[in-house]
Amino acid sequence: MFETAELGRSISKKDYDEKVQSLRIELLEIQQELRKCDFPVIIVMAGVDGAGKGTTVNLLNEWMDSRWIDNNAYIRHSDEEAERPRYWRYWRDLPPKGKIGIFLSSWYSAPFIDHAYGEIDQADYDERLDRIKIFEKTLADDGALILKFWMHLGKDAQKKRLKKLEKDDLQKWRVTKTDWKHWKMYDKFVEAAERLIMRTSKGHAPWSIVEGADIKYASLTVAEQVRDAIVRHKAQRTIELEAQDALKQAQKAENKPVKKKKDRDAPVEQLPYPTVLSRLDMTKTVEKASYKKELKELQGRLNQLARKASDQGVSSILVFEGSDAAGKGGNIRRITSALDARSYKVLPFAAPNDEERAHHYLWRFWRDMSRAGRITIFDRSWYGRVLVERCEGFAREDEWRRAYGEIVDFEEQIVDHGTVLLKFWIHIDPDEQLARFKAREVTPWKQWKLTDEDWRNREKWAEYEEAVNDLVEKTSTTTAPWTLVEGNDKKFARLKVLRTVCDALEKRLEEK
Amino acid sequence: MFETAELGRSISKKDYDEKVQSLRIELLEIQQELRKCDFPVIIVMAGVDGAGKGTTVNLLNEWMDSRWIDNNAYIRHSDEEAERPRYWRYWRDLPPKGKIGIFLSSWYSAPFIDHAYGEIDQADYDERLDRIKIFEKTLADDGALILKFWMHLGKDAQKKRLKKLEKDDLQKWRVTKTDWKHWKMYDKFVEAAERLIMRTSKGHAPWSIVEGADIKYASLTVAEQVRDAIVRHKAQRTIELEAQDALKQAQKAENKPVKKKKDRDAPVEQLPYPTVLSRLDMTKTVEKASYKKELKELQGRLNQLARKASDQGVSSILVFEGSDAAGKGGNIRRITSALDARSYKVLPFAAPNDEERAHHYLWRFWRDMSRAGRITIFDRSWYGRVLVERCEGFAREDEWRRAYGEIVDFEEQIVDHGTVLLKFWIHIDPDEQLARFKAREVTPWKQWKLTDEDWRNREKWAEYEEAVNDLVEKTSTTTAPWTLVEGNDKKFARLKVLRTVCDALEKRLEEK
Repeated sequence: MFETAELGRSISKKDYDEKVQSLRIELLEIQQELRKCDFPVIIVMAGVDGAGKGTTVNLLNEWMDSRWIDNNAYIRHSDEEAERPRYWRYWRDLPPKGKIGIFLSSWYSAPFIDHAYGEIDQADYDERLDRIKIFEKTLADDGALILKFWMHLGKDAQKKRLKKLEKDDLQKWRVTKTDWKHWKMYDKFVEAAERLIMRTSKGHAPWSIVEGADIKYASLTVAEQVRDAIVRHKAQRTIELEAQDALKQAQKAENKPVKKKKDRDAPVEQLPYPTVLSRLDMTKTVEKASYKKELKELQGRLNQLARKASDQGVSSILVFEGSDAAGKGGNIRRITSALDARSYKVLPFAAPNDEERAHHYLWRFWRDMSRAGRITIFDRSWYGRVLVERCEGFAREDEWRRAYGEIVDFEEQIVDHGTVLLKFWIHIDPDEQLARFKAREVTPWKQWKLTDEDWRNREKWAEYEEAVNDLVEKTSTTTAPWTLVEGNDKKFARLKVLRTVCDALEKRLEEK
Repeated sequence: MFETAELGRSISKKDYDEKVQSLRIELLEIQQELRKCDFPVIIVMAGVDGAGKGTTVNLLNEWMDSRWIDNNAYIRHSDEEAERPRYWRYWRDLPPKGKIGIFLSSWYSAPFIDHAYGEIDQADYDERLDRIKIFEKTLADDGALILKFWMHLGKDAQKKRLKKLEKDDLQKWRVTKTDWKHWKMYDKFVEAAERLIMRTSKGHAPWSIVEGADIKYASLTVAEQVRDAIVRHKAQRTIELEAQDALKQAQKAENKPVKKKKDRDAPVEQLPYPTVLSRLDMTKTVEKASYKKELKELQGRLNQLARKASDQGVSSILVFEGSDAAGKGGNIRRITSALDARSYKVLPFAAPNDEERAHHYLWRFWRDMSRAGRITIFDRSWYGRVLVERCEGFAREDEWRRAYGEIVDFEEQIVDHGTVLLKFWIHIDPDEQLARFKAREVTPWKQWKLTDEDWRNREKWAEYEEAVNDLVEKTSTTTAPWTLVEGNDKKFARLKVLRTVCDALEKRLEEK
């Protein structure tokens, strides 16, 4: 695989100087255009020690306007990082749209080193590489331009380079004992590198192998490729977006709803087929006396479990979704009132702010992964993508369709980290909703809860029900199952939710 | 001081239940109104162990809509927190406008405990309390409502409470060995508490001492005070803002600039008195040959110093301000090209985004305090408040006037943490600026750098110069001095900046 990167390619100082001069102008211009584009550029630098990764990154920063470049490198995990799912640190550092993020040592480093050192076998290595593939695909699907450079040196060339660096007073700090240790393991590294490149080089996130023997040649090559790729990607993105917009307009025109001043009391449109929601037994209730008793018991149980979880560093994430007026807030309150205020956070989600909009839609949720031992309650969540954004046309069809897979992967990472993840859909039927809406209208301190949007959403009952059915079908996994809650009787719903939380926490703590 | 909090005040269950019912409705309504207000509510809970701080916070969360409350508590510093100035963790958790932030254990905990344990003497204690005063004043000046509750118990009552809690299976976890240890130190704690309350109870951030013997009475009292304070603050804020707006409009009308289609080549208006800028010797230059030589030497020196700083965990913050076209970017590039890309970040600042606007203007800069050993370069900075925001009228006069003190305090905290802080004003004179603007107009890859705003700013030359003069006068301290850089000759400026950075780093590393 690396034969073509041991050909001794180089460039004369004169040619280099000439090329760099025009290249810099081009790069600066491109960067300015990029700032107006709706995609980020992600550059991964990897390769053999001493092959010039650091120097190349320095040159890219020098040639371009470093204000629009984020440089990232990772060494040990900080404790804040270690307390969260593994990819948190990378999500945290992803560049927003219009910016370039350079990753020197990246999500590739740990699996690569671990495999070369023999700490993970091939199957585990492949699994970790597959995780990378999903990660990069998720970003590329959202429009990101991903460029990955593997800087290569032959074994002899590497030795020569390390020795040369050691002789240079200003450079010798670059050579560590580890570098020499790795040089002795050269063949193992090459093998690990081949597999890595083979498995993770994709059309949307290709590896480019760069011969590192001549540092001028190498850095020029990288910079030229960056330049060309941005120009190409920008052109392609423009065409794509235009096509998608046209499609969206066409769909909108097709679906234009008949404007009808609806009778509020009229029954909502129902789907002609059964769904997971229509199959729920909505008559379930619980007596007031036994509710009071069981509520107290469950809250006591939850309190003790939560403290145990906190001591052991077990985090929980509870997701609450449901139709308007289904009682999410009341359910959440029954949980939080059993907890120490120090141990939980309730995060309500509405439309994203502009910083959030400049990133992948999952970014803001990654940002809110809490530290070890806490309970984080999401009042609405990443499922907005396949619910409100789908039904209201804020996301294109291709966007919300691929979101299911992205969400499953996201949740898998949360669960793999050891977090308890529970998802609740609180359901009420259309009659119950109507009754609650009307009650809100006449109760002064509940009026703020009822908006015109609630009435509009109600008219789309069937569409939302279909979306919920799809969501359960596609995202209720054994690791992160949905709990559908019959919510017509608030008391019944609250007990069911509390019981589910307690059982899950208890199970998780027993496993520990 | 605490006599009035040992009177045995209590409330009957019947009265409590009645009051709570109406209180909850009022609190929910107030919360909804608060969401539309332009100020955050900061609630600090402190006091004697076992006096019901935790229970009260839980009740506040239960009674209100916990989605609009952020609960914060602090135990040990995470390593990410320890690597930044002490108040970083608190700034990070401040609620945005429209939300309530509750702090259980807060900026008060550490100084209070340290003093009670005898680890800091009275002078140090006072100093730490003074820091708190400045912090709270800064937030209050920005509109924040700050409420602080000291939950009190007499010595006997505390003993009784701890014993009672220990007997309750669901509550006994609340009592730790430390609680008993603290009980034995009761008098020391009371003494420390008195001093704390005396020194930090201000009109804009008052302490309220609450008798904790009857938990129902205590929590109801806190909740009622929260309710009343928000209502009062909202009314007061509205009046204040209206008055300020009126004043601003009046000032604007007064200062309305005469709209003149200016001749671009005409000389800019000059101030009739000398300033720190007009006193600069703008004829300073450096020969090309000696520039090249010294540049290389300084960059080599910087590289070594930066690596040493990184090894020792010494962080640097470099602030670049200057007139348009003064060459900030070129100066920054000469620094970064000497550094390992892993070790620095360049942060360009323009107008704040909406999340940033929902916080105090210093919040976004606190957010960017980097981890230990890094160099963070601010391309424009918190000085925007007293430069562009002042000259363009984005900040009111009272806002930018008090900003000087806030900035000095902010920078003091950075320096106290051990960070090297350098501030550069790159200056060019009006003729040089005109020449550079014109050059930009004709250079294709520099055109993007020149905007209409640059021409507009130029017309306000005198105003900006006055602002710079004030800024140097008020914020050039021995701990964080300004370096004024004669920038007509780019080469001279670059060497001066590099030399200043090297000297400061070297000095700091020698002290270490």
